[in-house]
Amino acid sequence: MKPKLTLKQIAKELDVSISTVSKALKDSSEIGEDTKEKIKAFAKLYNYKPNNIALSLKNRKTKTIGIIIPEIVHHFFTTVISGVEKVANELGYNVLVCLSDNSFDKEVLNMEMLANGSTDGFIMSLAKETMQKGDYHHLQETINQGMPLVLFDRVVDNIACDKVIIDDVNGAKKAVNHLIDIGCKKIALITTVDYVSVGKLRTHGYQQALYEAGLPIDESMILKIEEMEDSEREIDNFLKEKNVDGVFAVNEHFAISAIKTLQENNRRIPEDVSVIGFTDGELSKRFIPSLTTVSQHGERMGEEAARILIDKLERSVSEEDTYKTIIVETGLVRRNSTKS
Amino acid sequence: MKPKLTLKQIAKELDVSISTVSKALKDSSEIGEDTKEKIKAFAKLYNYKPNNIALSLKNRKTKTIGIIIPEIVHHFFTTVISGVEKVANELGYNVLVCLSDNSFDKEVLNMEMLANGSTDGFIMSLAKETMQKGDYHHLQETINQGMPLVLFDRVVDNIACDKVIIDDVNGAKKAVNHLIDIGCKKIALITTVDYVSVGKLRTHGYQQALYEAGLPIDESMILKIEEMEDSEREIDNFLKEKNVDGVFAVNEHFAISAIKTLQENNRRIPEDVSVIGFTDGELSKRFIPSLTTVSQHGERMGEEAARILIDKLERSVSEEDTYKTIIVETGLVRRNSTKS
Repeated sequence: MKPKLTLKQIAKELDVSISTVSKALKDSSEIGEDTKEKIKAFAKLYNYKPNNIALSLKNRKTKTIGIIIPEIVHHFFTTVISGVEKVANELGYNVLVCLSDNSFDKEVLNMEMLANGSTDGFIMSLAKETMQKGDYHHLQETINQGMPLVLFDRVVDNIACDKVIIDDVNGAKKAVNHLIDIGCKKIALITTVDYVSVGKLRTHGYQQALYEAGLPIDESMILKIEEMEDSEREIDNFLKEKNVDGVFAVNEHFAISAIKTLQENNRRIPEDVSVIGFTDGELSKRFIPSLTTVSQHGERMGEEAARILIDKLERSVSEEDTYKTIIVETGLVRRNSTKS
Repeated sequence: MKPKLTLKQIAKELDVSISTVSKALKDSSEIGEDTKEKIKAFAKLYNYKPNNIALSLKNRKTKTIGIIIPEIVHHFFTTVISGVEKVANELGYNVLVCLSDNSFDKEVLNMEMLANGSTDGFIMSLAKETMQKGDYHHLQETINQGMPLVLFDRVVDNIACDKVIIDDVNGAKKAVNHLIDIGCKKIALITTVDYVSVGKLRTHGYQQALYEAGLPIDESMILKIEEMEDSEREIDNFLKEKNVDGVFAVNEHFAISAIKTLQENNRRIPEDVSVIGFTDGELSKRFIPSLTTVSQHGERMGEEAARILIDKLERSVSEEDTYKTIIVETGLVRRNSTKS
């Protein structure tokens, strides 16, 4: 039995990127004619069956939704999955989950696999690498072929599709305003690198809140973290000799690393330093002190995304589709890591 | 466009269970002839296409592995997924994840969906409800139709297939022996109801360790929890007036609830009471005091499961298949919730 040839194998065989193969087979003008011909010939020779969405749509509905998320260790993403599951099951849909591991190639391959007759539509949050590259051809082609896509959390402006986001700028402002309200003057920010859309927006919110309160914006008070694995060490180096009375961290892992470093350096939480996180997960609730945090309402985001997608799937296909962006309100959950 | 009829819809329409429809369509002798005829006639009338695994196997390999897990909020399951992903990606396989939400029906439906041309084989941990019912026909039929299945963690003895487990009895004994070694005499157990295989095995390990040390086994020192949602309240009621100097909890959530209740009742951890959990997740590492715990090595379990499954998929099919049970060694991770 001969296994089915995959995009990945073609890429490996011809020593080009997966993205190049994918684009060449779709006759993209981004790829040179020579390369396109070579790839097409190879695919034909080995009888490669490209993703034939249009055909599959005509023949059947799978009643299945595909979710592609960048990572699974984040509590936030598991709550979104729960929300999608809830609505999908009520409306008679199954749910399939794939992980991109923040890799562009895995995202493209997962989409290819799921679009190939396994699902009717997608709910996705983009891989870090995809946002870094700025290569969204796989999303655009899926939409062009008539398969609906809802992006959530990590979205991009230049893809026209439905989106479910939170107001990251305002969420961050809420957090920083709260720190200002309880008397903090030297507020540090621990965030992600700028190409992760939500990290950038939350950084803007932090800066806006300081600006509106007439507090100085000091770049040396901002730490931008690239790799999750290095975060504990980086936060430790950043905070151990810094004179701060407030910390805003864009996720609960960063917030807890900050608390540990501060405590090890004999700063009391919240008496000496108030700390606020983002995402209301198990860690935030269970940690001692429990974390004050901006709640993202992941479950509600999942429910909204599933509702939009299924609504689109159930309606008869129309050429002039309109797209919605739903903004889920953030909340501030006050606990014991900030002064009252 | 007429959507495809599903098992669920047939069940609803004829007011029988999903399991009955599934068995009737496979001509199971467990179902009465009348019911079988009615269901088959209905399925035929509406042109229901049953899961045709044999056909799909003959025609193609999807190079995809399906994982079905009972819940996603447990850190353990997310580490198993990471392990499967790691090996699968190295060997050129994709991974699809489905959640059963601990529901028997959802497990059957997910299996039906994934077996229907989306995957080549399964890696599964069983739903609580499936173990409670003791109904494993969907597993047996999948195996009978030539689709390999690897069970992990929550497995059953009476299904012949590959399994990846930890030695739950010995893992629990390690934990309780450690408590005994550091001087604990009144050791409570917080576990799950007996029909969850791992809960039962860990309860045996607890009892064996006490017995071998010549300590009394007192049923009133054992709390069996049915619903995760009620666990905090139940643990609070159970522990608040109990005279204990050691607690062994079968997961990290129970362990942390135990610590909270004990601290609220002015018992110091670990000076007055030593607490050990099971599963080495984020909570265990990050909690203050950090948790001494039995490590399940979820990632390694996932890797082993993926290796067995892919090995089976790559070999040519043989009628006389043999099955392996791989036992992944547990470890004791000592931290600050137990006396040194």
